Amino acid sequence: MIRAIMNGCHGVMGHVITDIISKDDAIEIVAGVDMNTENYAGYPVFKSLDECPEADVIIDFSTAKAVDGLLDYCETKKVPVVLCTTGLSEDQLNHVKEASKVDAVLRSANMSIGINLLMKTLKEVAPVLAAAGFDIEILEKHHNRKIDAPSGTAIALADAINESLDNSYHYKYDRSSERVARDPKEIGIQAMRGGTIVGEHDIMFAGRDEVITFTHTAYSREIFAKGAVEAAKFLAGKPAGLYDMADVVG
Amino acid sequence: MIRAIMNGCHGVMGHVITDIISKDDAIEIVAGVDMNTENYAGYPVFKSLDECPEADVIIDFSTAKAVDGLLDYCETKKVPVVLCTTGLSEDQLNHVKEASKVDAVLRSANMSIGINLLMKTLKEVAPVLAAAGFDIEILEKHHNRKIDAPSGTAIALADAINESLDNSYHYKYDRSSERVARDPKEIGIQAMRGGTIVGEHDIMFAGRDEVITFTHTAYSREIFAKGAVEAAKFLAGKPAGLYDMADVVG
Amino acid sequence: MIRAIMNGCHGVMGHVITDIISKDDAIEIVAGVDMNTENYAGYPVFKSLDECPEADVIIDFSTAKAVDGLLDYCETKKVPVVLCTTGLSEDQLNHVKEASKVDAVLRSANMSIGINLLMKTLKEVAPVLAAAGFDIEILEKHHNRKIDAPSGTAIALADAINESLDNSYHYKYDRSSERVARDPKEIGIQAMRGGTIVGEHDIMFAGRDEVITFTHTAYSREIFAKGAVEAAKFLAGKPAGLYDMADVVG
Amino acid sequence: MIRAIMNGCHGVMGHVITDIISKDDAIEIVAGVDMNTENYAGYPVFKSLDECPEADVIIDFSTAKAVDGLLDYCETKKVPVVLCTTGLSEDQLNHVKEASKVDAVLRSANMSIGINLLMKTLKEVAPVLAAAGFDIEILEKHHNRKIDAPSGTAIALADAINESLDNSYHYKYDRSSERVARDPKEIGIQAMRGGTIVGEHDIMFAGRDEVITFTHTAYSREIFAKGAVEAAKFLAGKPAGLYDMADVVG
Repeated sequence: MIRAIMNGCHGVMGHVITDIISKDDAIEIVAGVDMNTENYAGYPVFKSLDECPEADVIIDFSTAKAVDGLLDYCETKKVPVVLCTTGLSEDQLNHVKEASKVDAVLRSANMSIGINLLMKTLKEVAPVLAAAGFDIEILEKHHNRKIDAPSGTAIALADAINESLDNSYHYKYDRSSERVARDPKEIGIQAMRGGTIVGEHDIMFAGRDEVITFTHTAYSREIFAKGAVEAAKFLAGKPAGLYDMADVVG
Repeated sequence: MIRAIMNGCHGVMGHVITDIISKDDAIEIVAGVDMNTENYAGYPVFKSLDECPEADVIIDFSTAKAVDGLLDYCETKKVPVVLCTTGLSEDQLNHVKEASKVDAVLRSANMSIGINLLMKTLKEVAPVLAAAGFDIEILEKHHNRKIDAPSGTAIALADAINESLDNSYHYKYDRSSERVARDPKEIGIQAMRGGTIVGEHDIMFAGRDEVITFTHTAYSREIFAKGAVEAAKFLAGKPAGLYDMADVVG
Repeated sequence: MIRAIMNGCHGVMGHVITDIISKDDAIEIVAGVDMNTENYAGYPVFKSLDECPEADVIIDFSTAKAVDGLLDYCETKKVPVVLCTTGLSEDQLNHVKEASKVDAVLRSANMSIGINLLMKTLKEVAPVLAAAGFDIEILEKHHNRKIDAPSGTAIALADAINESLDNSYHYKYDRSSERVARDPKEIGIQAMRGGTIVGEHDIMFAGRDEVITFTHTAYSREIFAKGAVEAAKFLAGKPAGLYDMADVVG
Repeated sequence: MIRAIMNGCHGVMGHVITDIISKDDAIEIVAGVDMNTENYAGYPVFKSLDECPEADVIIDFSTAKAVDGLLDYCETKKVPVVLCTTGLSEDQLNHVKEASKVDAVLRSANMSIGINLLMKTLKEVAPVLAAAGFDIEILEKHHNRKIDAPSGTAIALADAINESLDNSYHYKYDRSSERVARDPKEIGIQAMRGGTIVGEHDIMFAGRDEVITFTHTAYSREIFAKGAVEAAKFLAGKPAGLYDMADVVG
């Protein structure tokens, strides 16, 4: 049984992950860390990682400002960590890289199993479709409170495709400001915002009189929690290095 | 039987319209006008409108530079005209307005029956959905040779919606250049380009945990020809004025 | 302030409705009814309606077997009732009709605002599109535990369309068992099942080289709770009669 | 330069293929075969294959009753043949198998490059998604004159998926006639019919709170002609055997 520490256990995602793990026979939570130290779902909750019992992996869904302490702890204790907190600074991203030299660290633009399987598929199919003359365009839809556009996941999807095409493509975000025909080496990326949409990503390959579209629709943020649990099960026991979800679905 | 003159009868759309009319018992082509005066499908073809026999309506799918002569003719002869040529200059648009004071002139951003029915529906449903808190976004997809974005039809759809909302909304074409939450009074309009896509328009109303989408997909340009024929049948015999397809599907 | 009784207050939907009403200034819950009489969210919970204080409306999300007692109470006390419990027997449906002769009763195939607005729109647009030669087909998608197909909502959408067409259409559920061309007076209704899909309904109008599709996607069952609250606000104070959500969105 | 014979050169598809080949530097048509022996596009047209000059490959878009003569010719002359005629009898399918013992014969449920690339992708991704608990459903849409359902392509897609899953799944065409929860080992296949839709195929993988959909949309039958030309270029010079489009896109 893999022993996990839930960092940020009283957040929404902490609760969802706790629920998922409670139904999984291969992993258990031995301690939580949170400002609020109320026990939860049968495990003790502490203010800091230092108070926690030994564990095989840490799942982190906390806040950016808690990440430096987390990484320090991981560097010292060599506990593999699934790092799901977003909005890290440039300095923190460098800290992540440093930590991954001595510890197994997993970080991904999108934690869902589905998106990462799709990404893997795109890497295989994009070169064939591009060679057959198909144009590539990406569309993403998210809720009306999301302030960045396009989504990190849309960029990650474009990056995966571009990588499979020797990085010979460039991205196009806005077509309204000029009058030019489409460049074949272009990946258009468009963003729609509205309501409470959790996240939809369409990757369109448009050819001569035929179009192939790959669509991922998320119905709740629970898919990120589920992905984080799979990642933790994968990461426990792994050697130092920087991992991402592509390794988990590989 | 309505007698029509086909202006630009040897163009692709001229041929398609000729074919549609040949199967319609309510309308016939009595003459064509084209640089190439070869007879076509049983009707005589002339270099200019002045050589044509009398008719009840003119269907125009010619070129922008032929439009001034056409409008002069219509002003003099008072023959209703369905004006499908695009890319008119500001001066020509004014000429259209002038001509419509003495003649029935029909012009529309999109000639298809389907798009115009959709536009009519949107005018009715948008105020109700907007009042219920739904956000409004438009997406259009066209072939990779289309140089303008968003499409004239997408703008026309947004205008129809906005008109039904007391023109209180503004349009947003690019979300990638700033980090702000969506303004509720915004209609996002995005454009995708690829392959030979004839034209797809999605109008999305996104609310709390539910999304309603209206989609129009065109499979060939024939739908514009078919709309032009319906427009001609509608316009024959109408008094002077500026009409559009909304009047036809009304 | 409208005073509501929440019948079945400790069910999932009871809790969601309680949460929505707590943020609404126009309505409050004065009592709940449930087997479990633990107080909830600040209101008292009773075993039976007879113990409840006076109210302006009852929202019911209980169980089929509790419905007869509920209707008896409503017939006696003349309290308007929003009846969201499903799976009623033929006898119970007759009881509903009887009750509506002396009390305001609202019952609907689908409680969401969006579906009901869509239904209203379809009634207006279907006759025009049908006259223009468009074929009508419906597709619904739900989670893999749903045992009935097609969904009650898909049937209700088809019924709304058919009613607007003088009930001249018939429904077609399975095309695999025969080899015949499509009957123009047919509404095809197809069902897909998979995963945890909350509910998607597509209504397709397919014409010559163009297709118009109306799509409703539900992201959570909360939309039914929200619709129930709007229905309760609408129904309070209404005279006896059988109402449905069409009246609410009217 | 590959020398091709176009069997059925005056049919719609024969003309489209002729047009595509005229723009391709790697292949040319040296003769056509048709009842109507009018020359076409610069090549001679004969009543029978026996009159034709030598060629490297035959492209066949003729009629079922012409196929036996074609296969006899191919068995004798050992000319590779791309067999696109549909509606073959059981006897003819056996004749195809026999012919493929001495000649290269290519036959496919769907000739489009896009569908066959999609099929290849599905074979790789289906086992991974099925193992992750995703349910599999297929939807196809075609014009209102198509009498068979589901389409041969939908069945071929299901077969490709099922093959990748050790043929452990079964197909479900109609959900309306019984009340049972979905069997996880089921591939639902639904058909919609309307208007002039050329062909759309959706393959849906529905999991817990996420759905991945692969969609292929055909805008004209030209994609089958284009696929046939690619197949001819692939097949010229190949040894005897039964090939399909999977080999071409491989």
